[in-house]
Amino acid sequence: MTKSLQTPVFGRLALIGIGLIGSSIARVARARNLAGHIAIYSRSAETIARAGELQLGDSYSTDPAEAARDADCIIICVPVGASTQIARAIAPHLKPGAIVSDVGSVKRAVIEQIQPHLPDNVHFIPAHPVAGTEKSGPDAGFETLFDNRWCILTPLPETDQQAIETLSRFWSACGANMEQMDADHHDLVLAITSHLPHLIAYNIVGTANDLETVTQSEVMKYSAGGFRDFTRLAASDPTMWRDVCLHNKDALLEMLARFSEDLSALQRAIRWSKGDELFDLFTHTRGIRRAIIDAGQEVDLPDFGRQAGKPGSDEKRDALK
Amino acid sequence: MTKSLQTPVFGRLALIGIGLIGSSIARVARARNLAGHIAIYSRSAETIARAGELQLGDSYSTDPAEAARDADCIIICVPVGASTQIARAIAPHLKPGAIVSDVGSVKRAVIEQIQPHLPDNVHFIPAHPVAGTEKSGPDAGFETLFDNRWCILTPLPETDQQAIETLSRFWSACGANMEQMDADHHDLVLAITSHLPHLIAYNIVGTANDLETVTQSEVMKYSAGGFRDFTRLAASDPTMWRDVCLHNKDALLEMLARFSEDLSALQRAIRWSKGDELFDLFTHTRGIRRAIIDAGQEVDLPDFGRQAGKPGSDEKRDALK
Repeated sequence: MTKSLQTPVFGRLALIGIGLIGSSIARVARARNLAGHIAIYSRSAETIARAGELQLGDSYSTDPAEAARDADCIIICVPVGASTQIARAIAPHLKPGAIVSDVGSVKRAVIEQIQPHLPDNVHFIPAHPVAGTEKSGPDAGFETLFDNRWCILTPLPETDQQAIETLSRFWSACGANMEQMDADHHDLVLAITSHLPHLIAYNIVGTANDLETVTQSEVMKYSAGGFRDFTRLAASDPTMWRDVCLHNKDALLEMLARFSEDLSALQRAIRWSKGDELFDLFTHTRGIRRAIIDAGQEVDLPDFGRQAGKPGSDEKRDALK
Repeated sequence: MTKSLQTPVFGRLALIGIGLIGSSIARVARARNLAGHIAIYSRSAETIARAGELQLGDSYSTDPAEAARDADCIIICVPVGASTQIARAIAPHLKPGAIVSDVGSVKRAVIEQIQPHLPDNVHFIPAHPVAGTEKSGPDAGFETLFDNRWCILTPLPETDQQAIETLSRFWSACGANMEQMDADHHDLVLAITSHLPHLIAYNIVGTANDLETVTQSEVMKYSAGGFRDFTRLAASDPTMWRDVCLHNKDALLEMLARFSEDLSALQRAIRWSKGDELFDLFTHTRGIRRAIIDAGQEVDLPDFGRQAGKPGSDEKRDALK
C-alpha cells in the first residue's frame, strides 16, 4: 500500500459512474492525494446527490461531458453495456492528451464499444481492477478495496508508453499490483476466475429457490452447511452481471461447457459409487486454496474469518487483530 | 448461547472421533460443564496424542469400546462410511439406558449402518449439527462452532421421549437451535443446502485446474474476482465428503439433475443474448442472501467480513467490533 502526499498523479480526474468501484477510486484518490480535482458523474440524480452527501468528489454532474471536460484522466465505471453511450457522449469534449480508461470486467467488448468513438489525440487504456464485494452503489466503496489486488491493463499495441506508465502509477498508488495482457486473454482468464463462478452461484441459488420438496425456510436455516457461501456472489449487481454475460459470451460458453462436462463425470462417479475417483478430486482441490492464500489473495482464517461476525466469538475475533 | 455451571447433562460423555466436530463438542462441553468425564477415541495414535496435548478430554483411547464403556452418552463423530465398524465395536460394551448419537451429514444411511448393531436397551438418536469450517482435525475445533447454528435430530418413531429431551438439552447448551425431522427429509434438505454446494465447489476448482489456456498462476492471482469463494468448500475433508456423496446418492443425483437442467437454460439464455432472462434470475437471487442474514445464519458484512483479514484495513476491522 502506497500512501502519497506528494504531487497528485492527475490534475483533474473524472469518474464516470460512482458505484462500488467508482466510489472506491474516489475515496482512495482523495485519501492518498492522487488527484487535484475529482469530477463525478452519475446518470441518476439521486446517486449524484448521495455522492455529494458522502463528499466523494469536488464537482458533480448528471452530464458525462461536463464531468469529462478538461479532465487529465477519465475512468469509465459503468456496467459494460453502457460503454458505447458514454464514449459517444464524452468524445467531443475530451482534452488532447487525456487518458481514457475503464474498470470493466470484460475487455474486448469494451474496446469495441469505446475505441471507435474516441479522437486520435487521447490515450485509451482499458483496465480492470480485479476487486469487489457483493455490495453496490456509492455507499459500498471503501479506500482499501484495491490493496494487494491485481489491476490488469489491456492496452492496444499502438498505445503511448508514457500514458501507460502514468495510469500504472495511479493504480499502484491505489494499492494494486499491475499486470498487462492481451484483451482476449484477459477475457478467457476472467471467464474462469470470475464470470463462471458468478454464473454458477446465481444458478445454484435459483435451483434451491425452485424446489417443491424443500421449503425456503429450510434453505435459510441450514444454509450454514455450505449453501450460504454461494449467496454472496449471487447477491452481486444484476445489471453488471447481465452485461458481463452478454459481452463475454464465447469465453463463458467455453468454460461452461468444460464445467458441465466435468460435472457429468462427477455425477457418474457418484451413481456408480466410484469412491476413489471422488477422493482423488476432493484431495487435489485442497492445495489450490492454500496456494491462493500464499499468493496473498485470500485471508488465512477458517471460514473466511466469518466466525468473527458471530455474537460471542471473542476468541476468533481476537485472531483478526 | 447458554452457559451453565450447574449439574452436567451427562456423567460420562464419549466422543468417538476427535476431528473438527468432535473436538468442538469436547471444547464446549468442557467450557460449559456439560459432562463430568469426557472420554475420547481416535483410531490414530497420533491424533489421540494431539487430543491429549490439547487437553480436550479426561481419558484417551484408540479402542472405541474402551471409550464407550460406562458412558451415558456416546457421540459418533467419524466419517459416515465408518459408522458400521464403530457400531459393531461399541455395541457389546454399552451401558443400559445410554444415549447413542452421531453428527453425520447424512441420516438414512447412518441409521441403516448403526441401528441393526445396537442392543435394545440403549437409545439411538441420530443427530446432525449443521456447522463447520473447511478445516479438519483436533486443532480445528472451537467452543463457539455451534452457537446459533441448527442441530437436527432424526429420531426413529419408537424412540424414548425423555432421551430425546436429554440430548436436546445437551445440544442447546452447546449453543444450537433444535429441530426434528424425518431422516429422508433431512437427506433431501441437506442435499441442496450442503452436499450439492460442496460438489459444485469441488467441480469448478477441478475445472479451473485442468485448463490449458489459463495458467495456475493466473487462476491464483485473479481469484478475488469470485473463484476464491469456491475454494473454501473445496478445501474440506476429502474422506468426509467422499462418504457423503456415496451415502446420499439418490438425493444428490436428484439435486444435480435439477442444477444441470437450470444451468442449461442459463447457457441458452447467454448464447441467444436473452438479457431480460438473465436480469430476472440475477435480481431474484439477491433477496435470498438478505433472508439468510436476517435468519441469523450469515454475517451482515460485505465480503463475509473478509476485508478485515487484509493488512491495513483498520476501518473494516473496526466494523467487526
